[in-house]
Amino acid sequence: MESRTGFAVGGTAHAEPVSVPELLARSRTLCTPPLRATVARLAAPMDTVAAYHFGWIDRDGTAVEGDGGKAVRPALALLSAQAAGAAAEVGVPGGVAVELVHNFSLLHDDLMDGDETRRHRATAWTVFGPAQAILVGDALATLGTEVLLDAGDTGGASPADAARAVRLLTTATRHLIDGQAMDVAFEQRDSVTVAECLEMEGGKTAALLAAASAIGAVLAGADDKVSGALQRYGHHLGLAFQAVDDLLGIWGATEVTGKPHWGDLRQRKKSLPVAAALAEGGAASRRLAEELADPKGRGEEPEPELAARAALIEEAGGRAWTQEEARRQHTTALAALDEVPMSDAVREHFVALAEFVVVRER
Amino acid sequence: MESRTGFAVGGTAHAEPVSVPELLARSRTLCTPPLRATVARLAAPMDTVAAYHFGWIDRDGTAVEGDGGKAVRPALALLSAQAAGAAAEVGVPGGVAVELVHNFSLLHDDLMDGDETRRHRATAWTVFGPAQAILVGDALATLGTEVLLDAGDTGGASPADAARAVRLLTTATRHLIDGQAMDVAFEQRDSVTVAECLEMEGGKTAALLAAASAIGAVLAGADDKVSGALQRYGHHLGLAFQAVDDLLGIWGATEVTGKPHWGDLRQRKKSLPVAAALAEGGAASRRLAEELADPKGRGEEPEPELAARAALIEEAGGRAWTQEEARRQHTTALAALDEVPMSDAVREHFVALAEFVVVRER
Repeated sequence: MESRTGFAVGGTAHAEPVSVPELLARSRTLCTPPLRATVARLAAPMDTVAAYHFGWIDRDGTAVEGDGGKAVRPALALLSAQAAGAAAEVGVPGGVAVELVHNFSLLHDDLMDGDETRRHRATAWTVFGPAQAILVGDALATLGTEVLLDAGDTGGASPADAARAVRLLTTATRHLIDGQAMDVAFEQRDSVTVAECLEMEGGKTAALLAAASAIGAVLAGADDKVSGALQRYGHHLGLAFQAVDDLLGIWGATEVTGKPHWGDLRQRKKSLPVAAALAEGGAASRRLAEELADPKGRGEEPEPELAARAALIEEAGGRAWTQEEARRQHTTALAALDEVPMSDAVREHFVALAEFVVVRER
Repeated sequence: MESRTGFAVGGTAHAEPVSVPELLARSRTLCTPPLRATVARLAAPMDTVAAYHFGWIDRDGTAVEGDGGKAVRPALALLSAQAAGAAAEVGVPGGVAVELVHNFSLLHDDLMDGDETRRHRATAWTVFGPAQAILVGDALATLGTEVLLDAGDTGGASPADAARAVRLLTTATRHLIDGQAMDVAFEQRDSVTVAECLEMEGGKTAALLAAASAIGAVLAGADDKVSGALQRYGHHLGLAFQAVDDLLGIWGATEVTGKPHWGDLRQRKKSLPVAAALAEGGAASRRLAEELADPKGRGEEPEPELAARAALIEEAGGRAWTQEEARRQHTTALAALDEVPMSDAVREHFVALAEFVVVRER
């Protein structure tokens, strides 16, 4: 059978998921085939570089068994179409488009940040060179727009709604770039304020989750009130996610040892717990500021020194503040859902996905 | 007074230009202010990096007197609006958008190619670092889409025509990226075919000139027949421009000495004269192929050796073929204009701009 999106949909795809794993599986089932077909439009060798980056092939070109990531953003896009009363399939071009933009940013960020691994694999720029990482990133961002315009041309959405979806995604992309620019600039500084940190994370993490949470609804013709509320859900969910990520970046345990790895402290990353601790102003806060301003030993601190620094951050209230911040943002995200009339099943899925995104252990 | 585009337009801007310098001056007068206002939307420090790249400030932030380039693409965008019977001002968002995409590609290409100067100035990545060049390029591409959507939202164009313009620009951007990807891949090879070279140049140079030549007409609501013919004009004009550029890359005289600089030969660039000479197959052609396959002395050939290589290319017919190719493409570009009903004045401007683009000496 043929869905409104123009993508063939199996008969079982309409069965309503009842769990987060099922929600994510549905999102991969519906979005991965059109995502792969879209990426296959790229001229060689960019198609290969992109397939490697997405985890579909290894560096020798051999197909890899794997699901290419959790697909949370596409799952939100599908749910948002349902929130607007449409079939999940109407959100598919939105899910594909946000995944393309997300991966554009990963390709460019890994290169800018000099990161050599991602999800236990060598990053694309280390395998294929910086030029390919730049080019393929550029191409994926462009494809994101094309996929949405295609939906408008082939009847998956009205042309006007497709254009609104392009606007939503384009604005999010620019906020994403602004966030990455702030993050790059932070590396040259000893400290940042909580407000600066939240603004950076609002761009780098929350903007695309906000777009993902509304893009299916926009494609389904939802009005600005519905789209705005769903964006707020995604925005605050993104900030909650990032607060948790920042906590795990310091106190998260490694999978091997089960002990904290202090990774973000090693890199002197200006994350929320650090910014909050620096803002507190007490004795531990001032001691932390002195240590971070000291260029000596940067990046080479021994384990006990990093553990002591983590204790300083905790003493200055950075850990508790960030835990509270994650709860606040999570609550605000859920409150935004109340502004949108939707079926109980869809609302439960949004709530469950939020829980899944915020409650992680490493 | 306020034009249909929402940009304020001076009373004299409506006077019809009679010469190419006047055409280009009008294009700068109409497009540079909105271009600068759009770039100013970027978060710091990206706004500074972009302003430096466009030539509006020097590396210390001091304002620079200058016009920021010839503005051929915006001039084509304005003319194409007129070709569709609209005021030149209707093409302004299109002119701004193509200039944004053009400069996105320059920022990224300079970094990928390792080019340290452009128009006698240090390239942005050498001044501000690779991360800023990547980020600002990404941001300019995104702004290109935003400017067109803005035109649809503020009445400069109908929303449907704005979406068509986004599609036109997005498709051109992807061809631009494909062309650059081919160019990067060519660097690893000893030879390329004429067809490969034309395909690369069709993407890297012609795609955006084609979009520029039609985007004003699309914003003005022209049908696909008019838009298609104007795109063909721009496409063939781009190929003619690149053929001339390839000739100048080998036999162009330096401004200082007046003697050929053999620049592209020094870099062993696979340009049209080289590809055509390699395809010819005679004695000179075979000798050229041997030299280019020999890694010895690459990039360090003394002047007389480069002069001898240029003579081989000429003997194998590469120079004459490329001159003929430039004429063919120029003629084909002008023929496409005949398919579009437009005023004699507008047609003469298209013809004059084509002459200006193709006839250069260095």
